[in-house]
Amino acid sequence: MDIKILFDLAILIFAAKALGLLARRIGAPQVVGEILAGLIVGPSVINLIQVNDAIEVFAEIGVIMLMFAAGLGTDLKQLKSSGFKAFLVALIGVLVPLAGGFALYGIFYGFAAPPSKEFYTALFMGTIITATSVSITVAALSEMGKLSTQVGTTIVGAAVIDDVIGIIVLTCVIGGCGGEGNVGLVLLKIVLFFLIAFVIGFVIYKAMEWLDARHPHTQRIPIYSLAFCLAMAYVAQRYFEIADITGAYCAGIALCTLKDTKYVEKRIDISSYMLFGPIFFACIGLKTDLSGLTLSILGFSICFIITALVTKVIGCGLAAKICGYDMTDSLRIGAGMMTRGEVALIVAQKGLSAGVLDSTYFPAVILLIIVSSVITPVVLKLLFSKGKQAV
Amino acid sequence: MDIKILFDLAILIFAAKALGLLARRIGAPQVVGEILAGLIVGPSVINLIQVNDAIEVFAEIGVIMLMFAAGLGTDLKQLKSSGFKAFLVALIGVLVPLAGGFALYGIFYGFAAPPSKEFYTALFMGTIITATSVSITVAALSEMGKLSTQVGTTIVGAAVIDDVIGIIVLTCVIGGCGGEGNVGLVLLKIVLFFLIAFVIGFVIYKAMEWLDARHPHTQRIPIYSLAFCLAMAYVAQRYFEIADITGAYCAGIALCTLKDTKYVEKRIDISSYMLFGPIFFACIGLKTDLSGLTLSILGFSICFIITALVTKVIGCGLAAKICGYDMTDSLRIGAGMMTRGEVALIVAQKGLSAGVLDSTYFPAVILLIIVSSVITPVVLKLLFSKGKQAV
Repeated sequence: MDIKILFDLAILIFAAKALGLLARRIGAPQVVGEILAGLIVGPSVINLIQVNDAIEVFAEIGVIMLMFAAGLGTDLKQLKSSGFKAFLVALIGVLVPLAGGFALYGIFYGFAAPPSKEFYTALFMGTIITATSVSITVAALSEMGKLSTQVGTTIVGAAVIDDVIGIIVLTCVIGGCGGEGNVGLVLLKIVLFFLIAFVIGFVIYKAMEWLDARHPHTQRIPIYSLAFCLAMAYVAQRYFEIADITGAYCAGIALCTLKDTKYVEKRIDISSYMLFGPIFFACIGLKTDLSGLTLSILGFSICFIITALVTKVIGCGLAAKICGYDMTDSLRIGAGMMTRGEVALIVAQKGLSAGVLDSTYFPAVILLIIVSSVITPVVLKLLFSKGKQAV
Repeated sequence: MDIKILFDLAILIFAAKALGLLARRIGAPQVVGEILAGLIVGPSVINLIQVNDAIEVFAEIGVIMLMFAAGLGTDLKQLKSSGFKAFLVALIGVLVPLAGGFALYGIFYGFAAPPSKEFYTALFMGTIITATSVSITVAALSEMGKLSTQVGTTIVGAAVIDDVIGIIVLTCVIGGCGGEGNVGLVLLKIVLFFLIAFVIGFVIYKAMEWLDARHPHTQRIPIYSLAFCLAMAYVAQRYFEIADITGAYCAGIALCTLKDTKYVEKRIDISSYMLFGPIFFACIGLKTDLSGLTLSILGFSICFIITALVTKVIGCGLAAKICGYDMTDSLRIGAGMMTRGEVALIVAQKGLSAGVLDSTYFPAVILLIIVSSVITPVVLKLLFSKGKQAV
């Protein structure tokens, strides 16, 4: 091994944390600072660190841990109770942006039929903007004390479900562009994977429950959980051509109702934020290609952001209206779903690995996260302060 | 990156933890089980996993974290108060085994003069058996309730100091066999490194103390600490040809009196035991070459273990006698210092990387850890139960 990796990791975690804190201080999400840190120390600016295989392994484990933690943090009860309404908001709230992103790319660069690369690039543009960032939405609602209102519960429920739908869409898209374009086989593999994941998840859950009862709060619980997560990530990608993060997320959901789930989550969280997580986000900055940022791409980025925000409000608002909410509440729900975060970056990253997305589009995704994270709380505050009181 | 790394890591951490627990159940140290796990899944037995660059990076960060944690856990006050007696016990307790290991190799395979490889191999044999395992010693004494007796304090103090002396010896030996054999230059580099480490350590300590006062118990404290540790490890190896673990250990000592040291230590500990630590020990098993275990090497191993145990008792016992302890207490101190642990493996590992030690000698080191860890508590119990009461 090359000893320089120690230097790389030291610089990356220090710069990511320092710029993350700076970002938070000026009101932006921490991840924005972490990405900027990678951008600055990378080839785009001072060229101190270049991406290498070891950094990529750390980054991949970082995103696997993030999705595993997201799975572990899933509140199954809340998901079930908000039920159909949240599901419909999530579903239409995924489909409209998906179509919007696809159409936007077509309008800019021409439409293409499958299995051409251009077709999948367009699909990826749509996929990137499907998933709402749960964490930012929750933070915004909780700050205003509207988290437990009916509108709030629907938003959070939908934000959780739309992560799952978003991941299924991502899986389909990656499966489609990875294989020979045989969509039937891809769908079969997806169904098969979720079936097997369900069975294995149930068995492992039972085994962990038994272990947890005998040895609560011992190191073996989080370690075996992490081993299960890594194994699921591997199996998903290796045998089902499904994104490894989907496997990690399923592993998290399988273990999200253990007695020691919080204990496991805490340890995954610490392992993640000490090293892997910051490196994942910094790595995105390292890979972001600023030299390709032409006026044309900048124009595309602005339209991309507008599309992402508007399609989410329309899709989710429409679904809320169908579910019987009035105009004000439908607008609140639509606006609450606008935030994009880690998942958008993860999807973009996956598109890059799959070879259908160019890193020149990364700045557009990063800008989307910044803009949506700043705008959503402002718009929500406006919508909740005017008109009737939310219940 | 190759996705198989996820599989490798999953298997390694699961097997290491499972066999580690099994080892503990039958009264052996956990690390023994972790090493066996690597041995079993590696080329020696079922050949499921082979060492690769990514695993080596994880293993290296694992040992860096272990040594950083050891540095953080150092009790500077205890070290100062037990003072001269502990220092003398440590010093003679390092020199006698060093000479013993060197002589043993010479007797078996012939003596050689520097700068031949054989000379340094012999020196490494001695270096491996210099450092007492603090953790096992403390556990044994505390189990018997003898930790705070004068004999206990001297043993623990000496065990801590002998880690430092052991690392200096290791640094000299690695420097000697790595460079052109110019011992003067090596010593100059060592002195220069410790001087610079002292200055940088002081500056970083002051900066961290300031940060800690303003933002206690925040993520930035452990993250910046880890970045400092990695940077020190890199600087040591890259610019001073000093082992990276020495740099990590110094970084730990520099930060061992922060208000939040326990907070940092806890997070390093979790990061370590969740992934990096088990992989370090399992990696030793992966690299252990059982095919080379001939009768001749087995014979050498037995003599090696006897040498390691006897030289420690003689060295430390003699020093204790010089310091004014009577025969019984001198024997107790000598016996208490017999345990070897992680550091012996770390040194062996360093010898392998430096190209002067063959992996065929790994079984001897592993056997030494097992035997000494099992024998020491038994002997101590015997020596403390007979004769006068310890005070």
